[in-house]
Amino acid sequence: MPVLVATIVPKPGKLEDVEAALKEILPLVHEEPGCEIYALHRGDDRLVMIEKWSDSTALKEHSKGPNLAKLGERLVGLVDGRRDIVTVEAVPTGDPAKGAI
Amino acid sequence: MPVLVATIVPKPGKLEDVEAALKEILPLVHEEPGCEIYALHRGDDRLVMIEKWSDSTALKEHSKGPNLAKLGERLVGLVDGRRDIVTVEAVPTGDPAKGAI
Repeated sequence: MPVLVATIVPKPGKLEDVEAALKEILPLVHEEPGCEIYALHRGDDRLVMIEKWSDSTALKEHSKGPNLAKLGERLVGLVDGRRDIVTVEAVPTGDPAKGAI
Repeated sequence: MPVLVATIVPKPGKLEDVEAALKEILPLVHEEPGCEIYALHRGDDRLVMIEKWSDSTALKEHSKGPNLAKLGERLVGLVDGRRDIVTVEAVPTGDPAKGAI
């Protein structure tokens, strides 16, 4: 079950605009097949999505789907193109309620 | 409620050793006050912890506590010192079951 940490660093002064774009798209992504978690987080200078997909097929469909394309369009001019995506696999350990997202 | 993404990049060939050290320490961290999530993930060249703490006080106690110190001792010689920690705040949006960890 793939887990992703996707980081978007907006251009200076554009954090609120990028957050608004993400908030628009999030409910649509939640309806995509295989979306288990797609959760927005805000840091001082960045927005971080923590994602969990049921399998790599669902993730691939999301990656080439219309919602992510729409987000890409909304982000034109707001980010420097620096979008860091780290894909990992869960290693559930310890307390089942705390050891996995 | 602070969320952290902590990335550890082991020295070449040391991924399994670092994972073992993390698996040892995880159940202890789960028992710390205010630990909501402390979840291990493995990538090709890195281990990623996704953490959620009840508040900044609990996180501060964890940061200076004995379990993290013990982990630091176990990691001596296994990592290059590159430990990246990103602290963010949740912005729950959309489906409550999918829009937050």
